Amino acid sequence: MKSFVTDNFLLKSSFAQKLYHDYAKELPIIDYHNHLPPDEIAADRQFENLTQVWLNGDHYKWRAMRTLGIDEAFITGSKSDQFKFLKWADTVPYTLRNPLYHWTHLELQRYFNITDLLQPETATAIYAEANAQLNTPAYSTRGLLAKMKVEVVCTTDDPTDNLKSHQQLTGAAIKVLPTFRPDKVYNFTSTEGYLKYQQTLAQASGVEITDFDSLLAALQNRVTYFHETGCRLADHGLGQISVADAGAINAQRLFEKLNRHESLTEVEINAFRYKVLTALCRMYHQVGWTQQFHLGALRNTNTRMLQQLGADTGFDSIGDFAQASALAAFLNDLDSTNQLCKTVIYNLNPADNEVFAAMIGNFNDGSVKGKIQYGSAWWFLDQKDGMEKQLNALSNMSLLSCFIGMLTDSRSFLSFPRHEYFRRILCNLIGKDVENGELPADEKWLGKIVADVCYYNAKEYFGF
Amino acid sequence: MKSFVTDNFLLKSSFAQKLYHDYAKELPIIDYHNHLPPDEIAADRQFENLTQVWLNGDHYKWRAMRTLGIDEAFITGSKSDQFKFLKWADTVPYTLRNPLYHWTHLELQRYFNITDLLQPETATAIYAEANAQLNTPAYSTRGLLAKMKVEVVCTTDDPTDNLKSHQQLTGAAIKVLPTFRPDKVYNFTSTEGYLKYQQTLAQASGVEITDFDSLLAALQNRVTYFHETGCRLADHGLGQISVADAGAINAQRLFEKLNRHESLTEVEINAFRYKVLTALCRMYHQVGWTQQFHLGALRNTNTRMLQQLGADTGFDSIGDFAQASALAAFLNDLDSTNQLCKTVIYNLNPADNEVFAAMIGNFNDGSVKGKIQYGSAWWFLDQKDGMEKQLNALSNMSLLSCFIGMLTDSRSFLSFPRHEYFRRILCNLIGKDVENGELPADEKWLGKIVADVCYYNAKEYFGF
Amino acid sequence: MKSFVTDNFLLKSSFAQKLYHDYAKELPIIDYHNHLPPDEIAADRQFENLTQVWLNGDHYKWRAMRTLGIDEAFITGSKSDQFKFLKWADTVPYTLRNPLYHWTHLELQRYFNITDLLQPETATAIYAEANAQLNTPAYSTRGLLAKMKVEVVCTTDDPTDNLKSHQQLTGAAIKVLPTFRPDKVYNFTSTEGYLKYQQTLAQASGVEITDFDSLLAALQNRVTYFHETGCRLADHGLGQISVADAGAINAQRLFEKLNRHESLTEVEINAFRYKVLTALCRMYHQVGWTQQFHLGALRNTNTRMLQQLGADTGFDSIGDFAQASALAAFLNDLDSTNQLCKTVIYNLNPADNEVFAAMIGNFNDGSVKGKIQYGSAWWFLDQKDGMEKQLNALSNMSLLSCFIGMLTDSRSFLSFPRHEYFRRILCNLIGKDVENGELPADEKWLGKIVADVCYYNAKEYFGF
Repeated sequence: MKSFVTDNFLLKSSFAQKLYHDYAKELPIIDYHNHLPPDEIAADRQFENLTQVWLNGDHYKWRAMRTLGIDEAFITGSKSDQFKFLKWADTVPYTLRNPLYHWTHLELQRYFNITDLLQPETATAIYAEANAQLNTPAYSTRGLLAKMKVEVVCTTDDPTDNLKSHQQLTGAAIKVLPTFRPDKVYNFTSTEGYLKYQQTLAQASGVEITDFDSLLAALQNRVTYFHETGCRLADHGLGQISVADAGAINAQRLFEKLNRHESLTEVEINAFRYKVLTALCRMYHQVGWTQQFHLGALRNTNTRMLQQLGADTGFDSIGDFAQASALAAFLNDLDSTNQLCKTVIYNLNPADNEVFAAMIGNFNDGSVKGKIQYGSAWWFLDQKDGMEKQLNALSNMSLLSCFIGMLTDSRSFLSFPRHEYFRRILCNLIGKDVENGELPADEKWLGKIVADVCYYNAKEYFGF
Repeated sequence: MKSFVTDNFLLKSSFAQKLYHDYAKELPIIDYHNHLPPDEIAADRQFENLTQVWLNGDHYKWRAMRTLGIDEAFITGSKSDQFKFLKWADTVPYTLRNPLYHWTHLELQRYFNITDLLQPETATAIYAEANAQLNTPAYSTRGLLAKMKVEVVCTTDDPTDNLKSHQQLTGAAIKVLPTFRPDKVYNFTSTEGYLKYQQTLAQASGVEITDFDSLLAALQNRVTYFHETGCRLADHGLGQISVADAGAINAQRLFEKLNRHESLTEVEINAFRYKVLTALCRMYHQVGWTQQFHLGALRNTNTRMLQQLGADTGFDSIGDFAQASALAAFLNDLDSTNQLCKTVIYNLNPADNEVFAAMIGNFNDGSVKGKIQYGSAWWFLDQKDGMEKQLNALSNMSLLSCFIGMLTDSRSFLSFPRHEYFRRILCNLIGKDVENGELPADEKWLGKIVADVCYYNAKEYFGF
Repeated sequence: MKSFVTDNFLLKSSFAQKLYHDYAKELPIIDYHNHLPPDEIAADRQFENLTQVWLNGDHYKWRAMRTLGIDEAFITGSKSDQFKFLKWADTVPYTLRNPLYHWTHLELQRYFNITDLLQPETATAIYAEANAQLNTPAYSTRGLLAKMKVEVVCTTDDPTDNLKSHQQLTGAAIKVLPTFRPDKVYNFTSTEGYLKYQQTLAQASGVEITDFDSLLAALQNRVTYFHETGCRLADHGLGQISVADAGAINAQRLFEKLNRHESLTEVEINAFRYKVLTALCRMYHQVGWTQQFHLGALRNTNTRMLQQLGADTGFDSIGDFAQASALAAFLNDLDSTNQLCKTVIYNLNPADNEVFAAMIGNFNDGSVKGKIQYGSAWWFLDQKDGMEKQLNALSNMSLLSCFIGMLTDSRSFLSFPRHEYFRRILCNLIGKDVENGELPADEKWLGKIVADVCYYNAKEYFGF
């Protein structure tokens, strides 16, 4: 059976089709947040087979396979790459209505020109065909990015990273820039874990960390180092902004307690996190970065599997943390001294979409177009319903026209058609409004807005 | 005026119509969770009139009538059955857009072949016609179930129940199985209430309850007794899983405090509940049951009416309890020793749909197809919007194809057309996707998935 | 380019069109909650230009302009009215998909018969044309209200207000009635702020406030005064109903602490608020008023701008407070002594829509049609998606047919087409159901329900 992914996939009105084909389709991609491995880009790695480039590391697929009742041996276990692929092919037809079903066929088509549906009957042929293509030079990591017209890639990097890969890539056709992600400084699960990281940080920065101020000095050193290597973005993963009476926190005391190898209480961890975070945000402001906050994930819920497979293997889900009050107070803390830099807040629980979409208006002060952004639908929400809800909440509570648009947030070199997916959904929403008489049929104007959201807003906003 | 409930009711595309009529319509019903009175099934009760079978005990209808400003005398009060029915008929036209409007006309049509709309003008004739039919043998409780092709009925029973009715029904054409619902052990509102129940439990089990361990022994006795009577399911009604540091709880101390007739604090009640609940869940795992959790209800909000009419009379609503963290920790507690049995979590607040739909993926470990289930739209959500949201959240976050589908959760013998309602909505959603080009028009495959969700998945999952 | 606001704007089916044009369009308006300045109605103020009547005080527009990156000087600052208008015209095309885009063109058309789209090219001509019209007598405040067939206007007034403007307006063609909004008694941010207000209240009431009882006596005095001036409504703005163990509160002790110029803890403020609020609610019940609760706003999030511009200037957003348990307990407290008067609860966070819609059923006791109301979509939710969600939640959980419908909640004399906007959306929803076969095509019945929701229910419910 041939793929349902046709030219006008997801474009249900002729106006939507015009918007997509004439204004969105050909635009390059600025993928300002992802988890691609910079070393594999620097080495221009070639993949042996489809399992390696497509299934390895993809916890979306793993979760689906586990839900269907497939043994872990075929997922992350000892079975051969081919067996793993065949089990994935068994699974695909059962993923109908899940984003995996769309992604799978979009990716097969865009990268390999394969238009057959993936299912047991077609699995072997598809595996062979894709593998053959993967072994040609055009399918190296940089080849795959170029195929999708990727202009900029922002990876996600620990402050202690030496950024050698990024330095090697200076001057490459595709800009590959680091992002400063200091989660390990404040999201530690044990004092020993923290202290180990403190040591690594001291080493990386060459700053001896003896008190809270020198901890900040070490971080400042890394911010500067990242900045010099082209970094213009920071990123933070948190369940929620921790509520803390900032004035009452004695960060030095908490630092000392940690360095006496004592455990902090939850309140103390939140306080320490708050202090480190706000100090970092002030550093970002000084160098003119954009800061990102990915809020709302409930991580590592399954101890048995965490011990077996480690983190980020498909056992995280959506939290229902209170977000509004503490997030507002945190942004206000930075804004009150005019040290709030450009900010993107990402939300994982769709129940909070309107809270986030309305929040950004509180700190948009006219200084920068779309200064505070409600980020694109994230992780579990990165699917048609999730994107539509994000776009609608943003439209209703703020200005869609100022939105900096899509990113992949992905570990996979084959996930860039999600930009296409987003663009089609965006064009379809606007096209529907026109068809329903809720927007004027002003093709040029709406086409300009579409192009802005798909590309030009991000280009202007980040100024890479 | 003739009913809007026609052959293609809710089926808006020809593909949806094909799916429903050819793959879903004729399937039997496994109603794996409801509140039907087993004694009325055992006695094969005949109903005197439509009010008795349709209005008595139906708090959905009662709430609607109260909202319209109808006096309680006509609802649960002293007025005659006929007067009550006439007031309900007055109300029906005002229920437009509420699920009651659809249910009412679907039920009149399926059970009584009545296609007139119920309204004041038609009320007397409809009452007479339905009553005449009710007085024929085909309208006994078992007749009503057979008319709807019900294969299995799982009632909801207290651990202290002797299950005589279920035993009498052994070998009947319709399987009527008990469900173990031990809420009274841990959801008590007073120490005296708990102690009274403890005594009943001791009596029913023949186990003298002198400490926490013998309390568990008494419960184990009942689990075994239920299992021998065909029970394969447990069920629990809770606002939320109580957060408790399981390691720190001294259940024996709490048991002693209760048995000294002292009141527990809220924290202690949560701790006691957590200990009883996890102990029970381990018993279920041992006998291979499925455990259900109905989470999110805010119960008995209206003291005045509670005192007048008792519980479950229409004064419960939707809570906004935090669910994610504690639910994950609870499931993890059971999973960490590999004692997490098949589990269904039901959600009452649609704001939490995605939290629930994503949660199940954390504990699906490949051992059973759809081991952890996000249950069907429940109670206030058991309507078209609610079902569509549940199906969409489930599709986006997990695999719809593994879903065990619908149940009535009802106290009424006339509510089984809700399975039809669900099936139509399911077929319509999938049909719409096909029509929109978001799914391939693979009738056989989609038909199989529909049949699985409507019947075969539950059959395989429960293995009654 | 001509406006997309045509005769059948938002009416996508012929049934919807019939409902709107034949049953809704011509009905008068009962605007039972807004923030219009009564003195400007009493004085029948004439506006100098479009900026003054349309942009001044409109924080929706201000937020949009700030988001686009426009300097505050052109928003609330020192620039001329004409410059401000031109910047607003620059902004309008960028507001596509935001309710501002629809409101703008609906308002230009209904008040000024201007059908050109507002954009830089048309700005000067539109400004001139509107200004010319504004300077004719028909465009006085009362002229503007009459043009929209406004029958009743309920303003929002502090208990200490002398209501002179309302008294002057007695007997006017348009009923202009006060609403009792005592937020300052319990929403204080400092003890000194409270004490200052206590003094004003003592003065206004002529009651010396020396203890908690005399505080209530002063408030009772104002309730009586308001009632005599035609007030039939109270209103309250709160993040959430404060949880408090009502029995344990010693209000007199808290009063004394305040009057010793000491600060209350947050728990104490909540307790004090609870006591004042419930005492007031019992007063309302005695005089037969309707009480309103606007719940869920997160206010004054931006300290820098609060200091610069004051409150209500566009720096509030949507909170995610827990609402269900405390709201139920509060209503139950009043209901338990049968002192719960007619009540409207408004919700700002759409995640809580179903909580609110289900909550009202707990306290509808058959005494009044639609006694407890889930209020119209409010503030950030006052847009098409927000209204549809409110109407759908209300329909699913309660009876749409008993709904008292729309209000502007506005500070602007040009915002009354929002009633038209609501009516179109309502008719469209019902029309769609008919077209989809989910409701019978009973034009008379559905037309009656539409007219009830748009006008007659409010008329009967409030009995102004």
